[in-house]
Formats: sequence, C-alpha cells, structure tokens
Amino acid sequence: MTTSNQDLRVGVVGAGLMGADHIQRIARTISGATVSAIVEPDAGRAEAAAATAPGAQAFASIEDALAASALDAVIIATPGPFHEPVLVPALEAGLPILCEKPLTPDSVSALRIVEREQKLDRPHIQLGFMRRFDDEYRALRELIAGGDAGELLMLRGVHRNPSVPESYTQSMLITDSVVHELDIMPWLAGSTVRSVEVKHARRNALAPERLREPILVLIELANGVLVDVEMNVSARFGYQVGTEAVFQTGIARIGEPSGLQRWSDAQFSIAEHTTFTTRFARAYDAQVQAWVNAVRDGSLVAGPSAWDGYLVALACEAGVRALDESGPIPVESPARPAFYA
Amino acid sequence: MTTSNQDLRVGVVGAGLMGADHIQRIARTISGATVSAIVEPDAGRAEAAAATAPGAQAFASIEDALAASALDAVIIATPGPFHEPVLVPALEAGLPILCEKPLTPDSVSALRIVEREQKLDRPHIQLGFMRRFDDEYRALRELIAGGDAGELLMLRGVHRNPSVPESYTQSMLITDSVVHELDIMPWLAGSTVRSVEVKHARRNALAPERLREPILVLIELANGVLVDVEMNVSARFGYQVGTEAVFQTGIARIGEPSGLQRWSDAQFSIAEHTTFTTRFARAYDAQVQAWVNAVRDGSLVAGPSAWDGYLVALACEAGVRALDESGPIPVESPARPAFYA
Amino acid sequence: MTTSNQDLRVGVVGAGLMGADHIQRIARTISGATVSAIVEPDAGRAEAAAATAPGAQAFASIEDALAASALDAVIIATPGPFHEPVLVPALEAGLPILCEKPLTPDSVSALRIVEREQKLDRPHIQLGFMRRFDDEYRALRELIAGGDAGELLMLRGVHRNPSVPESYTQSMLITDSVVHELDIMPWLAGSTVRSVEVKHARRNALAPERLREPILVLIELANGVLVDVEMNVSARFGYQVGTEAVFQTGIARIGEPSGLQRWSDAQFSIAEHTTFTTRFARAYDAQVQAWVNAVRDGSLVAGPSAWDGYLVALACEAGVRALDESGPIPVESPARPAFYA
Amino acid sequence: MTTSNQDLRVGVVGAGLMGADHIQRIARTISGATVSAIVEPDAGRAEAAAATAPGAQAFASIEDALAASALDAVIIATPGPFHEPVLVPALEAGLPILCEKPLTPDSVSALRIVEREQKLDRPHIQLGFMRRFDDEYRALRELIAGGDAGELLMLRGVHRNPSVPESYTQSMLITDSVVHELDIMPWLAGSTVRSVEVKHARRNALAPERLREPILVLIELANGVLVDVEMNVSARFGYQVGTEAVFQTGIARIGEPSGLQRWSDAQFSIAEHTTFTTRFARAYDAQVQAWVNAVRDGSLVAGPSAWDGYLVALACEAGVRALDESGPIPVESPARPAFYA
Repeated sequence: MTTSNQDLRVGVVGAGLMGADHIQRIARTISGATVSAIVEPDAGRAEAAAATAPGAQAFASIEDALAASALDAVIIATPGPFHEPVLVPALEAGLPILCEKPLTPDSVSALRIVEREQKLDRPHIQLGFMRRFDDEYRALRELIAGGDAGELLMLRGVHRNPSVPESYTQSMLITDSVVHELDIMPWLAGSTVRSVEVKHARRNALAPERLREPILVLIELANGVLVDVEMNVSARFGYQVGTEAVFQTGIARIGEPSGLQRWSDAQFSIAEHTTFTTRFARAYDAQVQAWVNAVRDGSLVAGPSAWDGYLVALACEAGVRALDESGPIPVESPARPAFYA
Repeated sequence: MTTSNQDLRVGVVGAGLMGADHIQRIARTISGATVSAIVEPDAGRAEAAAATAPGAQAFASIEDALAASALDAVIIATPGPFHEPVLVPALEAGLPILCEKPLTPDSVSALRIVEREQKLDRPHIQLGFMRRFDDEYRALRELIAGGDAGELLMLRGVHRNPSVPESYTQSMLITDSVVHELDIMPWLAGSTVRSVEVKHARRNALAPERLREPILVLIELANGVLVDVEMNVSARFGYQVGTEAVFQTGIARIGEPSGLQRWSDAQFSIAEHTTFTTRFARAYDAQVQAWVNAVRDGSLVAGPSAWDGYLVALACEAGVRALDESGPIPVESPARPAFYA
Repeated sequence: MTTSNQDLRVGVVGAGLMGADHIQRIARTISGATVSAIVEPDAGRAEAAAATAPGAQAFASIEDALAASALDAVIIATPGPFHEPVLVPALEAGLPILCEKPLTPDSVSALRIVEREQKLDRPHIQLGFMRRFDDEYRALRELIAGGDAGELLMLRGVHRNPSVPESYTQSMLITDSVVHELDIMPWLAGSTVRSVEVKHARRNALAPERLREPILVLIELANGVLVDVEMNVSARFGYQVGTEAVFQTGIARIGEPSGLQRWSDAQFSIAEHTTFTTRFARAYDAQVQAWVNAVRDGSLVAGPSAWDGYLVALACEAGVRALDESGPIPVESPARPAFYA
Repeated sequence: MTTSNQDLRVGVVGAGLMGADHIQRIARTISGATVSAIVEPDAGRAEAAAATAPGAQAFASIEDALAASALDAVIIATPGPFHEPVLVPALEAGLPILCEKPLTPDSVSALRIVEREQKLDRPHIQLGFMRRFDDEYRALRELIAGGDAGELLMLRGVHRNPSVPESYTQSMLITDSVVHELDIMPWLAGSTVRSVEVKHARRNALAPERLREPILVLIELANGVLVDVEMNVSARFGYQVGTEAVFQTGIARIGEPSGLQRWSDAQFSIAEHTTFTTRFARAYDAQVQAWVNAVRDGSLVAGPSAWDGYLVALACEAGVRALDESGPIPVESPARPAFYA
C-alpha cells in the first residue's frame, strides 16, 4: 500500500444539500481526507459552506480551483446536467473523481465521458451509486456469488418513498429512483439489462396529479434473471428499500426492519426509516471512505465506474420510453471495454 | 339459529389422499358432523376408509349412496374431471355440496354447473378454496375492507413449493397452483380479473425437464389493482405462500415465519413449512367447520360459490394461454348473477 | 381405538364466563361431544346458558345432575373454592372430570382429592392448565426432550397482563398468575420445584394501590434448572406470555409476535394480544378436544393430572410466603405415586 | 467548535490484540487523528505495529514517549493491572486519555486515580465502555429518558459468549463480562448499584471444569429498578448481548437478529454474531471518533469517566463476593463529585 500519511485534499463541487452533506462527511467522518476546496458559483453559499470546513477555500468554478492547485481529488455533487462541465476539466487535470449519480443526463453525453476517460491510463471516475456500499446489499451479492443457494433466478425489489418534491416528474420515477435499481440489480446478478417494461398499478390518489404511480418495472437481464421493482413515491408510511432474491434452492431478503423493538398500545413495533439519508447513512460514509482509500493507495476507483453509469443511462432511456409504451423496451448494452474490466 | 342437535350426515366422495383427509377431519375434528357414507368405486379403498370412520357405509357410486338416503350433505374430493358426474346428481337431490377445487376442469363445464345450480332456490355448492379460511388472509381482507391504510393499489404474491410430483405439467402451474391466487386475489381486492400475463424467470435447472419455471404472473383486476404472483414449484427450501398488499398510505404482509425461534450454530432460525398440509391445516378445518355450520343452520354455503369457481376457470384459461403467448391475455368476467349475490 | 360413534354427554358445572365459554366450545367447536347438562345454582343464569346449547338440561346441583344420569363426563368451571364439592361426588360417580385450575385452593384440600381419586382404578381428573396444549409450548417441550440443543440450563418467563380486576389481590400474583408457570416450567424441564423466591422490581405506579408489582419470581427445580419469571399485571400495552430456554449449545424462544405485519406511520408493527382468551384460544380448544377424545377412547386423562395440581398447590404456598419473606422458600415435592405415573 | 485542521496525534499504549485494533482504527477509520506513537516494551511487537501506521514512532515506555513530546493524547490498551503506571504519568502530563476497561483492577487503585485526576482542572480520562456508543443502547436510553413508555421498572439482560480462553477464571464472569452490565445498566436507568446477587443455573457441562456457569446476576439499583443479567460464557451457538426494558406501559428490546434473511433447508434464518468484535464494531469506531472529536474541541471526554470506572469497580467487588455468598451483597456507591457532574 502506498498510502502516505498526508490527508487527501478533496474539492467538493456544489454546495447544495448533497454537497454540504459530503463536506461534513469529509470534515468529520472520513479518515485521511480534508476538504480543501469548495466550488460553488453562488458566493454566499460557497462561503457558508467553507466556514464549516476549517482550511477549505471557496472557488467560483472548477477551473479556478484547478488553477490554484487547491485539490488532489474531486467530489461532484451538483445536479446531473452540470456534471459534464466539471468532469471534463477534472479528467484533463488527471484528478480522481467521485461523481454523484447520474454520470450525465443521457447516454450520448455519458458516452462522451467514457470515451474521454479512456484517453487516461486507467479509470478515474467513481460513480455515486452508494447502495453498493450498503452492508446488506454486499451480503446479498456475496451470497449470490458464493453459489450456496444455487443459481439466481429472480430479483424482486421494492422502493417506497413517503413523498417527492414538486420538481419530481413522471420520468424521474425512472431517472431519479429506478436508476438505483438499474445499477444495483445487474451488479447483484452479475449481468446486464436486456429490456425494461413498465406496468401501472392502480394509481395512488394521494400522488401529485402529474404522477401516475406506483408502477411495477420488469427488467430482463442478459443471463435470464427476471427482475421486478415496485416503484412507489407517495407511500406516506415511510422510506423502504428492499430486495428479495430467488435462488434455485432458497430465498434471501434484505431491507427488513431492525433496531429497537417496542411493545405499546397493543402492538409490537420497530421504527421504519422515513428518508434515504438514514437508510443509507452508513453506505454513504463507506462509499466515500473506500474512494478516499482508493485514491490514497493509487487504485483511484473502488466502486461503480463511468462505464456503469453509461450502461445505466442506456437502461434509463428504455425505462422512460416504457412509461408510455407497452411491452418490453429492448436495451442494447455494449460489451464492457477492457479499460473498465 | 336453526341448528339441531343432530349431527350432520356427510358423504365423502373419493377416498384418495384428500378424501381420506376429509374423512378423518369430519370424524375427529369437526363439531356437529359424522361421516355417514364413503363413495369410492375401488372397493378395497372404500372399505379401508370406512373402517376409519365408525358408522360410515361404503358405496360404489353417488347414485347408490343417494338411493340409500345415506347422507345429508356431500364433500367431493375426487380429481377435477370427476366432479361433474357427482355434482349433477347431488344438485338434483338438493344436497349441500363442498366441492374441492377446481369446480370442473374448464369454463364450459363450469358454466353448465352454475346454470344447473341456478334452478335450485339458492346456491348449494361451496368451493374448496381453503385460503379464504386462513386467519392471515382474513385479517388482510379486513384491513383492505376497513380502509385504514387507504385504497389498495397492488397485491404481490409468492407461492413456492419444494417440488412437484411427476404428474405435474406446465399448464398445472396455472390450473393447479396459480388457481388459488386467481381466487384469493380478487377476493382480497373485491374485484375480478381483467387480464393474465406470464413472464419467465431464469429457468430453475433443478426443475423437472418438462417445466419452464419459476414464472411471474401479472394479473390486472377490473378495479385497477395490479397483482403479481411469483410461482415457483421447485424451490427446494420449503413451502411458502405469502402476500404483500400495497395501500395508499401503508403496506401489509402475511405469510411470514412464526412459532418457536432458535439460536444454534451461529444462526437464528424459525422452521418453515414444507407442505401445504401444515401451512393450511387450520384453514382446512375452519373451512369444513364453517360449511357444516352453514348446512346445519340452513344457509348452506359459507365460502366461495360455484360462481367463483366459474370465474376462476375463465381466468385459468387465460393463464394457460399466457404461458405460451406474450402480453396480457384478456379475461371476460361476466357480471355476478343476483342468485350468487 | 374404542371410540364409539356416540357423542360424549358433557355436563358443565358453572355458567359464569369460563363455563359459558366451555359450553359454546363443546357445542360448536369440539368433535364428538355435546353439552347435556348445565349445573348452576342461579336458575336464571342456568336457563340462559342452556338456551345456547340445544339439548342441554339445567340443574341446580351436581347431585341433581348425577341423579338424573344426565352426563357422562364433567367440566368444572366454577371458582376454585367450589371445586371440591363437585369433585367428590363426581369421583364417587366414577365420572371423568376436566377441572379448571386450581384443583382446590390449597394443598391440604388438594391432597384430600388426590387421595380420594386413588381409590379409583386410575386417574379421572384432568386439570385445566391449558398452556400444555399450546403449539409453541409443545414445540419447546419437544426440543428440550429431544436433546438437540444439549441439556436445559435455564428457563426464563415473562407473563404480562394489561390490568387486573378489582378483586385481584397481592397473593393472586402467585395463585392466579404465576400458578401457570409453576405448572408449565416443571413440565417443560421434566422436574419439580425445589424453592420459590420473589424479588421486587420498582413498583409500577399505575398498579392498583394494593399491589406491589411487577415481581421477579425465581424458581429452582430439582434437576438444577433455574427458572425466572417476570410477573407483571399492570403492563397496559397488551397481554404477553413468553418463555426463553437456555440450553448447553443454544437458545429457544416462544411467545413472539406473529400474524399480519403492517407498515404505517413510520413504523413496522404486528398486533399484540390484549387478553389470554385470544392468546390461548387454540390451546383451550385443543385441551378440551384432547380430553373428549381421551374420555371416548377410555384413557380418561390427556393432560395434567390432579397430582400435578397438588404439586402446584404446594409450590404456590411457597410462592405466597415468598411475597413477604426474603430468600428462597423451600418446597417439599413428594414423589409421584405410581398411580399417576 | 475549536477544532483545528490539524490531526490529533494519538499514542497507543499496548500493541496486543486490542492495541493493534485501535492502531488500525485510528489509522484507517477515524477522522482527524493519526497514530504518532506506539508504546510497547516488546521491541519486536512495537516495530511490527509501527509498520502498520505510517508516521508512528515506537517507544518502550510511556515516559519515553512523553519525553519525546510524541503525542497529544493517549489510548491505553494494556491489561488492567498495567493501567495505573500509564494513567499516572499521562495525567501528570495533562494528556487526554481513552482507557480500556477496567480503569484499574480494584476499587482502591481506582480511587487513587480519580483522586489524582481531580487535581486537574477537569476530567481527562474516558473509559472504554463501548456499549454506550452502540446505536441500540443509545436508542434505548433515549426511550427511557423520554418517558414515553412511563417509568422504567426492570432491565433484563442476556450476555452469551460461545466460549472463553483458558485464562478465563470464575471471578472474570464478573470482572471481565458482567462488568459491562454494571456500567451500562445504571447508565440506562440513570441510577447506581445498591446490591449484587448471584444465582446459579444448572451448570453447563460443556463449560471448562473450573467454571460454574451460567449464572443469573440480580442487581438492585438505587432508584428501585431491578436488573437481572444472564451471564453465559460457554453458549456455543454464538455471541449475543441483549437487553429488555420493562416500563410502566410498555416493553422495549434490543440485541435482536438483523441483516440478510435466508430461507433454506426448511428454515428461515439470520446469521448471529459469534464475537463481540463484529457485534460492537461500530460502537468501537463511534467511541473513538467521539473521543477524538472531544479532545479536538477541548471537551476532552465524551463518554464514561474515571468516576464511572470507580463505581463499576465497587460493584464488581460485590459481584465477585456474590459468586460465593448467598443473598444480595450491598454496594456503597459514593455520591458523584461535582468535578464529574
């Protein structure tokens, strides 16, 4: 291991909710890293964020931060449409990058990024699909890979949100929510997406008028594994993400309630999550720590790559079409280049 | 209540596994009934069965038993193809009937039966969909009907068998197994089937060569509720039937492990069922007791009717087509006649 | 099996809550028995009860019922102090008896009963410790007896009631509630009670003023197994009875929540019982059915005997002393006579 | 917050199992700290440990490390008998200290330490009772403090180990194992220990010959709360620590199985822990991070103090006596000095 004793100097791009969260994480939770730069065009927001991270400098653009040699690595926490203008100069500068999902908003721009990245000596981009760092998803993947329960036949997911903000649109059912399943399910199954289909449940009358949901998303994988995902964003009761794996000789399930158990008022109960920030708190920490460790030891990437992000972009485009068209929408998943092996 | 103090004299038709089971149930578990007649063409088998039920007489045919006035009510426990020749004379004789599922093997013959039955003053046939008498299914139905959790949006079922006998064919995935879901899901949701579709999971290599399973069955109900059922008959690990209901504001689930909990060998465990006979033991008892009570108090039927059996036959026919055709196969569910209201 | 086809004619003594419950059970749930006599000095109550059981005759006293040859077997459902005056003539008449717990209110009178009973050819009294017929207790006993988890070392019980009626006194913590544990724990462990000790928890300020509880009852068994029981009768939240068994190589637990699971209002929940009548509903049915079967087949007793009731009376007396005295109160459990083997 | 951007320089005393674990934790998991010194008389072991922590220097004694100004704070990870010779010079040097439990091996030496510490301006010692940093224990404490379930009446603990090393003696049941309960139970209940009593279960024949266990430890707290702890160190099946809290109106429970659920071989199962290192992995991390944060922000202590360690030493001495003497052994818990408020 080539880890030096020096903390990694991380620049965080975007000081909104997600960016502020990463800044605090680097400053207070992650070992071996400090926030050295905060890139945010809104000067007030940038200063406010810098004040919470001792030693961090505020910059209006990634170019300014790079010019000042203010960072060794970068976390991109802006909305998807703003990723490419940061990814490109960061790649040019040869910086390791942890980029929040999605890589970019569509497969065409995603392809541009993976093509640009392949001019470097090795992958520099890790994508923020944090579920891959959740203990339960990892245990499930190990069980699948280990083969103890025989071949995997089906994966059955539920993704239930109490509610969504006003900005959430019908296509975001796929691009903002199911997107996680389009990454994690192939990762679990060791395969790629072959088609995506959407079935409509009875519409939840409590959903915002613009939304027709919940939906059931059917995903065929190249190895024959059938995936179905219940996607539900007005579920009210809480936040729940779970997966059931059907094997040849058994079943496995993750995402069940845990923690303090109570008996009161004629019932037994366990608190359920109400937001992804608690459900995946440890996964976010583990993801960033793994990335920092990888950057410090020179391996640069310790999770999903830009290529994974490109594949997900292709599947998302099929998923969005499937919201309006009946039957399975095929997905052409290109073979993984050796560069990303 | 007009219940007399006299035990109901029940004739059991068919002394195979299921018939023998009913004979013992009536003889040893059910209050207010005795086995008075056993109808079974195989004389040896008939005598053997009669020996286990004090006071029961063996007959070679239903006609003989009727001629001897040997029974007040009849349970039909033969295979489906042999139901009609018993149902017709029993209806002619005006006897109350508990008929194992299916009513008959197809919708045309089922329609003949419901038409014949409607010549009587009221329904005389109760169909043996025993799940309707399972405590958990009943609790779930009450929750749905009560409206506490808002409107029902989806029903998600799993039906997993350790294995099936050699006689089990591909179409029996629908007609022998999913048939239960085609009864219980509409019953839970208070609706009827609009279409049936089948998706194929990765084939279980441990399944008998003639079977392509597990499958995922998608069922649209007339009220918009979307149903999906994982049907799996080579699951090895045990016997499991479960349902998850998705409501506007919450979720409910039945079919989870219960009973004695153990810690041993680095794990916490609960025994799972390995056969429907233990999973639904109490449902069978409750079903027969409810039927006996209904016959004794004059209401005759206390569960699914012949009409329900006819609707299920129609849905099964769509399901069998769906095994080979892609996309949803529509089901024309006729309106329920006032006779069966 | 010598079971005849004739229903057993059961007389129920006492038409209060428990008696009425048994009358309905015999009339509507139990196979092979009918209520032929109701013995109740309050004429109005007797008639009301008889009206719910077709064919039952009301009597003012057990002597009248015996004189009328109105019953083949008797269930005693009066309060404990009234048991002896029914037990004695019923034994004289050679009738099989199912007697609600306790056998009698104290060990001296209990001894009189077991001495009287031993003049018959074999035991005629079964005692109503219904827990022995609960599926989970039976599974636990089998696990213990089977030895899979090694020797049994400890048994840890909880018995929590939401509240108790005004008539409930401090000593009833032992004689009315812990009494069940004093029967079931030795039965599980295959041993007898050697001492009883009581520890006081912080008093529940919501308990009636006359009660000092919850308490922790420590019971040493003759085979060295240590038993502790948390006894709690103002627990408010629900009714809960559970046991944990500590073995050499593992742990087992019964009494956990089961049935329909819900997610709502940011929590996962399962309904808890609020009364023993639902928690042990099936145990009551199974107990009475087992007794009826035993009477019909001539074995007469299929559960705890009068001798068990006598041993429990001895242990209760130590328990009541332990409420006021510190340290373990020894119990002299006499050896079981061959008559009760 | 006065946190500087400089990493805290931590010296770790003792490079055995526990010390090596802390060294890795500081080096790879904890934010804002580095291992600057390793104090270990065994030169080979010291060098080996230093090699795993870039930038750390090895010293033969705490005096050498202090003379070299090689550390800002110290973690003591040697066995208890070696704590005092490190605590004293570290206190003299005014260093913040995280000391593994126990503070010292007995209450007399513990008193010497708290007296010495009180000569400083404020507490400098945090004691390594890591359970206080476990999420579930914290949730339970909040529930108790919040009062939602009414007053706390009882606490019921189980502490089950698969096995113990050869060096483990009978008194270590108290001083090495129950010691954790003697800290955590008063902390949960907001009280102090009034007496300790030990009851012997049937001896586990699989326990090492020198041990007589499992035992049931009864602990009375000053506020009347009754605590019982099952202490079991040859339980074979796994490692399990759990607590049940009995309130006026409800129950709470922690330590239940969680994580991936499986169905296989006719059972439902969840993996149980087999060692405290996995059960409390996050608690150890959270404990050290909280301590590092406290040192960096100047509050120095963020957990149990030396005073808590002194109280536990007093209770342990009663517990050890209770192993051989019957009845409750009283504990005189002195009032907490304002210094430790």
